[in-house]
Amino acid sequence: MGRVVTLGEVLLRLSPPNRNRLVDSRTLEVNYGGSEANVAVALSQYGVETALVTKLPEHELGDAAIHTLRGFGVDVSHVVRGGDRLGVYYLENGYSIRPSKVIYDRKHSSIAQARIDEFDLDEIFAGRDLFHVSGITLGISESSFQLAKACMEKAKETGLKVSFDFNYRSKLWSLEEATKKFEQVLEYVDIVFAGHLDFTNILGIKVDERFAKNDIQDYYENLYRKVHVRYPFTFIASSIRSVESASRNRYQGLIFDGKDIYASQAYTVDIVDRVGTGDAFTAGFIYSYLTKQDEQYKVEFATASAALKHTISGDTVAATPAEVERLFKTGEFRLQR
Amino acid sequence: MGRVVTLGEVLLRLSPPNRNRLVDSRTLEVNYGGSEANVAVALSQYGVETALVTKLPEHELGDAAIHTLRGFGVDVSHVVRGGDRLGVYYLENGYSIRPSKVIYDRKHSSIAQARIDEFDLDEIFAGRDLFHVSGITLGISESSFQLAKACMEKAKETGLKVSFDFNYRSKLWSLEEATKKFEQVLEYVDIVFAGHLDFTNILGIKVDERFAKNDIQDYYENLYRKVHVRYPFTFIASSIRSVESASRNRYQGLIFDGKDIYASQAYTVDIVDRVGTGDAFTAGFIYSYLTKQDEQYKVEFATASAALKHTISGDTVAATPAEVERLFKTGEFRLQR
Amino acid sequence: MGRVVTLGEVLLRLSPPNRNRLVDSRTLEVNYGGSEANVAVALSQYGVETALVTKLPEHELGDAAIHTLRGFGVDVSHVVRGGDRLGVYYLENGYSIRPSKVIYDRKHSSIAQARIDEFDLDEIFAGRDLFHVSGITLGISESSFQLAKACMEKAKETGLKVSFDFNYRSKLWSLEEATKKFEQVLEYVDIVFAGHLDFTNILGIKVDERFAKNDIQDYYENLYRKVHVRYPFTFIASSIRSVESASRNRYQGLIFDGKDIYASQAYTVDIVDRVGTGDAFTAGFIYSYLTKQDEQYKVEFATASAALKHTISGDTVAATPAEVERLFKTGEFRLQR
Amino acid sequence: MGRVVTLGEVLLRLSPPNRNRLVDSRTLEVNYGGSEANVAVALSQYGVETALVTKLPEHELGDAAIHTLRGFGVDVSHVVRGGDRLGVYYLENGYSIRPSKVIYDRKHSSIAQARIDEFDLDEIFAGRDLFHVSGITLGISESSFQLAKACMEKAKETGLKVSFDFNYRSKLWSLEEATKKFEQVLEYVDIVFAGHLDFTNILGIKVDERFAKNDIQDYYENLYRKVHVRYPFTFIASSIRSVESASRNRYQGLIFDGKDIYASQAYTVDIVDRVGTGDAFTAGFIYSYLTKQDEQYKVEFATASAALKHTISGDTVAATPAEVERLFKTGEFRLQR
Amino acid sequence: MGRVVTLGEVLLRLSPPNRNRLVDSRTLEVNYGGSEANVAVALSQYGVETALVTKLPEHELGDAAIHTLRGFGVDVSHVVRGGDRLGVYYLENGYSIRPSKVIYDRKHSSIAQARIDEFDLDEIFAGRDLFHVSGITLGISESSFQLAKACMEKAKETGLKVSFDFNYRSKLWSLEEATKKFEQVLEYVDIVFAGHLDFTNILGIKVDERFAKNDIQDYYENLYRKVHVRYPFTFIASSIRSVESASRNRYQGLIFDGKDIYASQAYTVDIVDRVGTGDAFTAGFIYSYLTKQDEQYKVEFATASAALKHTISGDTVAATPAEVERLFKTGEFRLQR
Amino acid sequence: MGRVVTLGEVLLRLSPPNRNRLVDSRTLEVNYGGSEANVAVALSQYGVETALVTKLPEHELGDAAIHTLRGFGVDVSHVVRGGDRLGVYYLENGYSIRPSKVIYDRKHSSIAQARIDEFDLDEIFAGRDLFHVSGITLGISESSFQLAKACMEKAKETGLKVSFDFNYRSKLWSLEEATKKFEQVLEYVDIVFAGHLDFTNILGIKVDERFAKNDIQDYYENLYRKVHVRYPFTFIASSIRSVESASRNRYQGLIFDGKDIYASQAYTVDIVDRVGTGDAFTAGFIYSYLTKQDEQYKVEFATASAALKHTISGDTVAATPAEVERLFKTGEFRLQR
Repeated sequence: MGRVVTLGEVLLRLSPPNRNRLVDSRTLEVNYGGSEANVAVALSQYGVETALVTKLPEHELGDAAIHTLRGFGVDVSHVVRGGDRLGVYYLENGYSIRPSKVIYDRKHSSIAQARIDEFDLDEIFAGRDLFHVSGITLGISESSFQLAKACMEKAKETGLKVSFDFNYRSKLWSLEEATKKFEQVLEYVDIVFAGHLDFTNILGIKVDERFAKNDIQDYYENLYRKVHVRYPFTFIASSIRSVESASRNRYQGLIFDGKDIYASQAYTVDIVDRVGTGDAFTAGFIYSYLTKQDEQYKVEFATASAALKHTISGDTVAATPAEVERLFKTGEFRLQR
Repeated sequence: MGRVVTLGEVLLRLSPPNRNRLVDSRTLEVNYGGSEANVAVALSQYGVETALVTKLPEHELGDAAIHTLRGFGVDVSHVVRGGDRLGVYYLENGYSIRPSKVIYDRKHSSIAQARIDEFDLDEIFAGRDLFHVSGITLGISESSFQLAKACMEKAKETGLKVSFDFNYRSKLWSLEEATKKFEQVLEYVDIVFAGHLDFTNILGIKVDERFAKNDIQDYYENLYRKVHVRYPFTFIASSIRSVESASRNRYQGLIFDGKDIYASQAYTVDIVDRVGTGDAFTAGFIYSYLTKQDEQYKVEFATASAALKHTISGDTVAATPAEVERLFKTGEFRLQR
Repeated sequence: MGRVVTLGEVLLRLSPPNRNRLVDSRTLEVNYGGSEANVAVALSQYGVETALVTKLPEHELGDAAIHTLRGFGVDVSHVVRGGDRLGVYYLENGYSIRPSKVIYDRKHSSIAQARIDEFDLDEIFAGRDLFHVSGITLGISESSFQLAKACMEKAKETGLKVSFDFNYRSKLWSLEEATKKFEQVLEYVDIVFAGHLDFTNILGIKVDERFAKNDIQDYYENLYRKVHVRYPFTFIASSIRSVESASRNRYQGLIFDGKDIYASQAYTVDIVDRVGTGDAFTAGFIYSYLTKQDEQYKVEFATASAALKHTISGDTVAATPAEVERLFKTGEFRLQR
Repeated sequence: MGRVVTLGEVLLRLSPPNRNRLVDSRTLEVNYGGSEANVAVALSQYGVETALVTKLPEHELGDAAIHTLRGFGVDVSHVVRGGDRLGVYYLENGYSIRPSKVIYDRKHSSIAQARIDEFDLDEIFAGRDLFHVSGITLGISESSFQLAKACMEKAKETGLKVSFDFNYRSKLWSLEEATKKFEQVLEYVDIVFAGHLDFTNILGIKVDERFAKNDIQDYYENLYRKVHVRYPFTFIASSIRSVESASRNRYQGLIFDGKDIYASQAYTVDIVDRVGTGDAFTAGFIYSYLTKQDEQYKVEFATASAALKHTISGDTVAATPAEVERLFKTGEFRLQR
Repeated sequence: MGRVVTLGEVLLRLSPPNRNRLVDSRTLEVNYGGSEANVAVALSQYGVETALVTKLPEHELGDAAIHTLRGFGVDVSHVVRGGDRLGVYYLENGYSIRPSKVIYDRKHSSIAQARIDEFDLDEIFAGRDLFHVSGITLGISESSFQLAKACMEKAKETGLKVSFDFNYRSKLWSLEEATKKFEQVLEYVDIVFAGHLDFTNILGIKVDERFAKNDIQDYYENLYRKVHVRYPFTFIASSIRSVESASRNRYQGLIFDGKDIYASQAYTVDIVDRVGTGDAFTAGFIYSYLTKQDEQYKVEFATASAALKHTISGDTVAATPAEVERLFKTGEFRLQR
Repeated sequence: MGRVVTLGEVLLRLSPPNRNRLVDSRTLEVNYGGSEANVAVALSQYGVETALVTKLPEHELGDAAIHTLRGFGVDVSHVVRGGDRLGVYYLENGYSIRPSKVIYDRKHSSIAQARIDEFDLDEIFAGRDLFHVSGITLGISESSFQLAKACMEKAKETGLKVSFDFNYRSKLWSLEEATKKFEQVLEYVDIVFAGHLDFTNILGIKVDERFAKNDIQDYYENLYRKVHVRYPFTFIASSIRSVESASRNRYQGLIFDGKDIYASQAYTVDIVDRVGTGDAFTAGFIYSYLTKQDEQYKVEFATASAALKHTISGDTVAATPAEVERLFKTGEFRLQR
């Protein structure tokens, strides 16, 4: 099926149970996640052998993060232990007209302090087919940027495909900072995941005005073609989200293979947990890519993977390929017994 | 009000709390239910004296099943104790685009091993007005089929009405097996609960083609008339479910009294717990039948009983006749204080 | 910002977790609330210094009520301790087609037995700008009516504005009893919160027939003008609720300043907790009034405050003015990170 | 086995989970109990047919109390519905050096308002062997005293044995009030449960000084003989509790058959739930009495029943006679598998 | 450190939370365990590479068992999927004078139906140092006995050490059946774990009478020497448990190396979860054996591992070697901060 | 009663429920505490007006900390908002032979970054009687040390008594660092809380050898006299803890008034929550000091306050002076009803 390696931070996620507010919560639910870790977990659920490269502190919470990832089948043998702390984020799940909220407490984390020489890149990349990283890892710290860049270089050298998700986080860094870093690594990228605002705000690529008010598919096609002129990515993939309420979104995926644009069916989903849906999209795409599905299958599987994630609590999609396929092939929700 | 006796398996139901997935659950919620037991509980809530005939193992879980049924007012004095095990089913409640799932672990249960001579049928049927059983009991094992058949015969002999719910379960047996057993008992049945696919797939009765694309009421009327020719049931009742999503269904009831078809109002319900809604429909019908309501009331009460069940956690409808009536008579959902 | 004082009962609220039914609940969730206490808490969250006047028993549950209110920043230094008991109400939250239910057990409570001479009205009203009370306090007992009336008189004497929410509760008293009491105090009122049925059923003021079938805003304007003739309130405010289901309401606010009527935008809200939404409306209005916002802002803030409350568990809105403003100014529900 | 009828209040018990304090609890655990109801439940667990006579309000909490009792097998067909409210008590379980606390909120309850003419005593006492009531029912209200007295008279008339537990509660009434009432009914009593302070403080019977410092068995024997002179009860039974800490007690039982005193073995128990242990003692004695065990068995079974109750959460002992027997016959606590 | 392989059943364990009784539980806590799986998990926590050989059904509960084991670091690549069901056991944790209880529901499980030809023994045993199995696997079914025997033979052939824990379960099979099977495999065993009753009841080896009343160490030494004559095991290890109450035990370990007996210090432990303590002893011994510790260290580590397990919820010891060492080296329980 | 002001960090405490291990916890319980905050809360429960000076971030967790403190009656009007983060600590509660564990994640917190000029010391100290701070605040950062020192100076200038708890934390700083800082502030201190190791390791004061093996009271008296020579504190107070197990300690208090030593009674306590017991001792002493109790009362109240805290979940003692007094005056643990 192909073997994947990802690099990124694992965070402790703490969220109030049910629909409670943070300010009034006496218990918090524990999850361990992070963009690239979520991709690794989902790929592993889909049957792809996947390793995560990261650094975690040497205490029980670092252990717990490892237990969780390993439980989902992710190869954790390249996780380095040490450093000061595990990054934390507090998630308040919104509902209806009340939006979700995130408080980040991730500065000074072990991965932010990790150095390239702590990792044996030769061993890590040996026998792999694809390397995935997101913009978050580039923004965590200068040293994590250097680590990510070194991995992307090494991956290309070693003949891996490189997959990159923009994942711009305004609470992490400014658009200017992101632009500066992204421009240093986009040359290594084969598959890119980004939304139209990412291309416009970070790369300065704008859709021609005449498309701006046209239908969404035309709009994106024009955008993709312009991106492709500057960066000849093998695949560009985006998801389009329409936010009816904090607990009800409309969700659709698009991919562009340098020639044509493919759109998935759209889903209206009631949301249990919105976090990690983009990572489920990414994992769905990579899975279909590695299993050599056709383009329409790719965009359908990626989108159904993401749609399904909305209904699953936690950072990661816990689903089988059969469940994902059933969703986009039948659209049938009956209880079977 | 009439006195009812039912025969069937009581299962331990284990389900993850909230909207969690089975694979990731550290606690499971406990319910005790089963199709005929659910009918018995609901009838008891509606004020009808009801006994359940079953067999349960002699350990604490058998005790707990009895405590639960007795708590709801069901007469458990005819429950035989013994045998190997309590059947279990694991229910993962779906949400939105994620369907619910059931894992059955019910083989080798005490009731599957029960023999007719363990039950005193004379005593059980004395002074009763109606006997209810479902197709599940016919499919559990050869001996439970024999027990059910003996009860139906005895019921008819003793002058009871016999009510039968097809309740076909594809994870339990094949259509062919069901057909073979059903055909041996349908002669005893006065009131039958089944959907159009049951009649078609199990009894081989099809609606004339010209109706197939007509409106649903015409379609069912044609079906009922054809069924009635072969089996002159006093009442045929069906519920029609349209599955918008795993957590939102549209639900309507139909009954046929040999002459006319009656349709209830339709409800769009957000689902807390889908299991047991058919049993609530059955109980609602039997209650209205025993209390000699007119046909329109019967179908409205049965449907409202089922609709309400969707919003109640557990296998059984915990509601009063007044609550059911309020639903179909006022359709009013305001908080009263 | 202005300083507010309110008078009213604090109740222990006990409600089954999740969507469970009372009859089947093994745990109950604890909240402490009451109409005027809820207004006090919300005002305090909005930055208004607010005191609650009430009487609570001298045991741990009285302490817990005080802890809760004080935690939200309400000044509890005027709470008198003593008397027999804390009033309780049991709330079963409805869902979809199943309505919510309330069982009151509030008779013989400490506040129902409180006497005027237990409170130092001079000290309580010194330096305050506004006094708020609701019809519930008038209906609890004769002595609580006398206490409320004395406070309204004292407030007017001392130069405070008086705010009054009709809050008619049919389980507390009859319309006739309410009319008799309300007529003794409406002369003191500057700001009144009531619905059209309150004006019609309690004050006997009816909209001209030609408006009855017109649009809702015209209907209310006619009603307000008629009320204003008899009672020249500075402000009349109402909220209009359309109950799609027990868990989905449409909600809009109206205010009348003696000259013009102002309508807020309407919200369709999925409900976590319906209780206390009217109090959130009242608090939103008082906050905007005290911070001297224009009329349109007043009705928008009050309505958004109430709309938001529907999504928050417990009796009280735990939100900041910035959150309320964001809702009515942007209508945007995206996750920000 | 004999058939028993008991009379008494059913209370809603609300207690913080784990070892939490009431003042800081956001959830409360629900139990339904009361001294005589607890005796009824335990007897039913032990296989004795038992009915409870009481009055409960007509709302969901009254229903829930009935569900609970019926689930345990208690005959609830003589429960009258109506009246204002269900009595409540709040229990804070202590631990180690922190004592347990109880807040009663039971005034004005339905049973406190019940009248004799609401109950059909002829029907209630027909075919019964023993009537049990406790001093609490005598102290709830004048009308509940009259009801209890009428039941005791009727029981004697009808040939039942009468069992009476002093159960003096200082938060309910004074010693003087108790004395006055007890003296009106003790003539009907065959079996009495009381501690030495009860006999001394309520009946004014004191042990001779020379015994006061002797061993406990001599002390009690002298006491019993003096009591027996004034009231020739068939049996007097007491339990002796030594309170090492709030969560560790030493517990032993004594009975006197008019001639000899019998002492059980003593248990040192770590406490899960102290409430209802006296009722478990009473039920254990009545069970042994009705099954005609010898005196030593009676005191052993009663004491082991009570000892076991300390380890079971809730008001009532959920145990089988086999479990109780195993405790006093083997004193063996190994896991069996 | 050496590499270990174990063979055995994984069961779903369901237990009431806190100290609740099964008959009264509305939720059950989920664990996945089984004697050999527990040993594998503990060894993995101690840093020993360990694989588990078993068969699990192909549904979500089988997946969950795998997630759990893999999370703890156990190699699950040799788990075969298929068969009918996952065995279940219900555990009611006792407390104080109330013993723990187990209800087994493990018949017809996937592993009971497994055939030798489903496993690739060559691959499984390649590169391993030790094979561990317990008597339970021998007793599950004839086919699981054959599988275990084949594994023991294969292990010996391949040069592995074989470790065997008697683990006699009276609810699984009779002493006679156990004797017959054990005698067929003991020749393959190097390290044996058993108590004195096991040797006496199953192997018929009795301690000389003159030791029976002597001190426990002498008693065991005599026993071990007699066993060693018949079966020249490299090591015999036993733990001695004195049951003060269901929640407080005294625990000590003994080992015999063919020449000398070594006793560990004794621990008095308050019990959180008694299940799996023997497996923790076994794992502690194997860890010390593979890391070539001296005999006294072996018995101390094994015993401390087991003692610590008593305080940890679930089937498996979640502890590090450092924690185990700290316990037997310092006996210090202070909070460090 | 005197008015108190304290200075210190408020931490978010996260701990697994029940006796679970951190590595295996899916939920964490939330508390907000910190040494000086705990003292403030306890003093407020005891009726002393108390303010806390600290700095908290401007997000919901900072709000929640304030809600909690304010709920307990602590004056939070001098809390400054801002800075990067709220310090966190993870607490795993031990049991029996398994010790409790703490993971600190408190670096870079808002209070660690606070500057003196952010606080209006004139206003803070006006009208106060006593200032309390602990060694932790001196060790958090250089700037928090400067802030604490400035407060101690200001307190002395303004005529307040200064109370200081050594509270040495080896995970925070070295003994050498603590010595250097402590020596700069001890001149301001009137009341000091410290154990014998603190005096020895930090101040280098040792008990004469001849006392080392004498009884504990003599030992401490010698120590206190030597300390008093160098630092003429008005009061020195210590608690002596003997750790039988992680969940059972023996606890006794000592105080020295410059002339005599006073010892409290000793308590053996079963532990629910060990954290904050020293703070409860400190608060108990300050309360008795401010209410001008005699020396024996002081040491008894302080010790009973601390002993009681062991049985209460969370960082802070939630108890009334009456409960504390009852403990040391009666030593009686019966349920009262």
